[in-house]
Amino acid sequence: MKVLVANLGSTSFKYRLFDMTPELSGQPAQQLARGGVERIGSPSSPCSVEIGEFQGKMELEVPHHGVAVRACIQQLTDPDNGCLTGPEEIAAIGFKAVHGGRFQGVFRINDEVLDAMEEVSSVAPAHNPPYLAAMRLLASTVPDIALVAAFETDFHQTIPAARHHYALPKAWAEALPIRKWGFHGASHRYIATRSAEILKRSDARVISCHLGGSSSLCAIQSGKSVATTMGMSPQTGLPQNNRVGDLDPFCLPMLMQHTGKNLEEILAALSSEAGLLGLSGGISGDIRDLESAAQNGNADAQLALDVYVAEIRRQFGGMLVALGGCDALVFTGGIGENGASIRTAVCAGLQELGLALDEPKNAATRSSETRIDDGTNRTQIWVLPTNEELIVARQTVAALA
Amino acid sequence: MKVLVANLGSTSFKYRLFDMTPELSGQPAQQLARGGVERIGSPSSPCSVEIGEFQGKMELEVPHHGVAVRACIQQLTDPDNGCLTGPEEIAAIGFKAVHGGRFQGVFRINDEVLDAMEEVSSVAPAHNPPYLAAMRLLASTVPDIALVAAFETDFHQTIPAARHHYALPKAWAEALPIRKWGFHGASHRYIATRSAEILKRSDARVISCHLGGSSSLCAIQSGKSVATTMGMSPQTGLPQNNRVGDLDPFCLPMLMQHTGKNLEEILAALSSEAGLLGLSGGISGDIRDLESAAQNGNADAQLALDVYVAEIRRQFGGMLVALGGCDALVFTGGIGENGASIRTAVCAGLQELGLALDEPKNAATRSSETRIDDGTNRTQIWVLPTNEELIVARQTVAALA
Repeated sequence: MKVLVANLGSTSFKYRLFDMTPELSGQPAQQLARGGVERIGSPSSPCSVEIGEFQGKMELEVPHHGVAVRACIQQLTDPDNGCLTGPEEIAAIGFKAVHGGRFQGVFRINDEVLDAMEEVSSVAPAHNPPYLAAMRLLASTVPDIALVAAFETDFHQTIPAARHHYALPKAWAEALPIRKWGFHGASHRYIATRSAEILKRSDARVISCHLGGSSSLCAIQSGKSVATTMGMSPQTGLPQNNRVGDLDPFCLPMLMQHTGKNLEEILAALSSEAGLLGLSGGISGDIRDLESAAQNGNADAQLALDVYVAEIRRQFGGMLVALGGCDALVFTGGIGENGASIRTAVCAGLQELGLALDEPKNAATRSSETRIDDGTNRTQIWVLPTNEELIVARQTVAALA
Repeated sequence: MKVLVANLGSTSFKYRLFDMTPELSGQPAQQLARGGVERIGSPSSPCSVEIGEFQGKMELEVPHHGVAVRACIQQLTDPDNGCLTGPEEIAAIGFKAVHGGRFQGVFRINDEVLDAMEEVSSVAPAHNPPYLAAMRLLASTVPDIALVAAFETDFHQTIPAARHHYALPKAWAEALPIRKWGFHGASHRYIATRSAEILKRSDARVISCHLGGSSSLCAIQSGKSVATTMGMSPQTGLPQNNRVGDLDPFCLPMLMQHTGKNLEEILAALSSEAGLLGLSGGISGDIRDLESAAQNGNADAQLALDVYVAEIRRQFGGMLVALGGCDALVFTGGIGENGASIRTAVCAGLQELGLALDEPKNAATRSSETRIDDGTNRTQIWVLPTNEELIVARQTVAALA
């Protein structure tokens, strides 16, 4: 069974194509291809594909995500270099969808699901609108392929009530889909599964640090999420590349008065001009740029890095206490897998709490499954490359069954 | 030198009167009297005073805080039972003031200070307006007494930048008094001082849990605040009695749309109908009421308690990692000093991280200086009754000097 996993941005469509049949007999799923389209809506959009050794590229006019998917399917079914005999080989498209509001699992896409996403569109302004547009388009342009939404909130369904409630008036909490939903569920679920295999135990207490363009931590107990750092919206928790992270709502009237912006405009700015980008005074939301600016003496870039690390540590500590201790701390995501100096800063001075890095090993590790603690402490520390798409492919198969 | 320390509510005035002269020669300051006025603005307000063994009460028409102070001074200077020969004996009134915005220390009250308080009035709607009104009245009604504001944010001036910045656009953070200010500074400062005396070391890492009608935690390193849980406003951090605690601002448009309220009205509700009161569906914002309702099987009351404890633990963990370990965990404030079962819940399952209560000792301890850990772990656990007024009296003396 072949499943295409889709990851959407407002002007981009990225995918991986898996053959999931081997998993039925206990073998690893096979990634057949990956590719995508960028700059959707511009006069010319680059469409790329990798199938085994083959790398293909073309420029096309791609006015919307429906055309993008058709272009990708065309590359995948190319008689010379493709890996599919026809589009009917694709059993389903699984979407790594973000916020489903009340729909917190994996669902065949229908009007009810789309309505629930619409209801929380203002809460995930960078994420839900492109998914909604693409899902609606695809439902009409590729009607023969099953569409499945695997929401990023799914893995966090097991978080106990004490950790998913805001202290709102009860009537509001009951009437509205407001709670700490959490995101990056596919990545944290992958880490939960993979770390249980590596630690050879199913009851481990694992803290998964997914650090990347957007970042969150997840406390995992016996394979289940029991706490996470993102709340109602993907703008909460740690400072994100350009999104604000935790913020006191009582700042808003002052921000509105100062800027002359209305609430919607302020929230839009907090979703696109804040976070690491904002802290650094506009230098960058990318940790690598900030590290290089900080090395050149830029104090704003250093502040952005320091706030990021302090918040990771604060949230890590909250999870350490929630779990009563930690068997493994796992770094994943673009920064988690490659950012050795961020890992060093996060783990600094924690020997008394049971954590210490092997510094040379940490410094040498980039995006490979590697244990990087010094072996003398209670908590193992690992770098584990995540595989969100594989999780979504599995969930899609399960949803079809 | 006699100093009256004032603690104001919107319709109340409470004070303690100290003789601070003994401290000049290394002796403890002496509390001469305590008292206050309630229901200010109603036709008849009870004014009470305790001077040593003497307890006095009278009912008066007290239209505003200026009259309240004069009524109290009248009781203190009563020829039969008073402890002062005349009002001129009071060197100063020190206010346990809350939010001074950019004024984050201890200041003689003048127009500049009042303007700074005004600037953040909407951020501390339950606190700043009554202080502003009372300070303005007193400046004209008792012009001979020096007035000093000791802001609750004062102790947190030492928090490093990485822990007091929100991830806002830099230009906004520079233009506006928006940062994590922190509150309960007098209480946390008292705990810092007292725990250093008790531990007989000035370099201790202490986590102070001020739990009461409003609650915050403070990480103390070598006597200085290095982290706290309240941020820009006193509505942040832990859920408070009727204030919301941490909340994702991206909830607000949905709340406004659902209720038909505007932003100001929603924020007002989050300052008065949320927190423990809101979580419990309106039962109470008082932990004692919630504990008794929960014992009778009320699930909403239990949820409120569970969220409160989970948030204390989360924040405690953040501080444990910030400090790299903890020499003493101190419970103070009304709940911290008396709430044995909250203390039990906060400390549950933390042996691996170096904390364990002596349960019988914990259960027996109410509002007295008592060590309550089991003596076998790294972190000492203490109950220490706070004395915020003494701190404000000391700060007032220092500000006059």
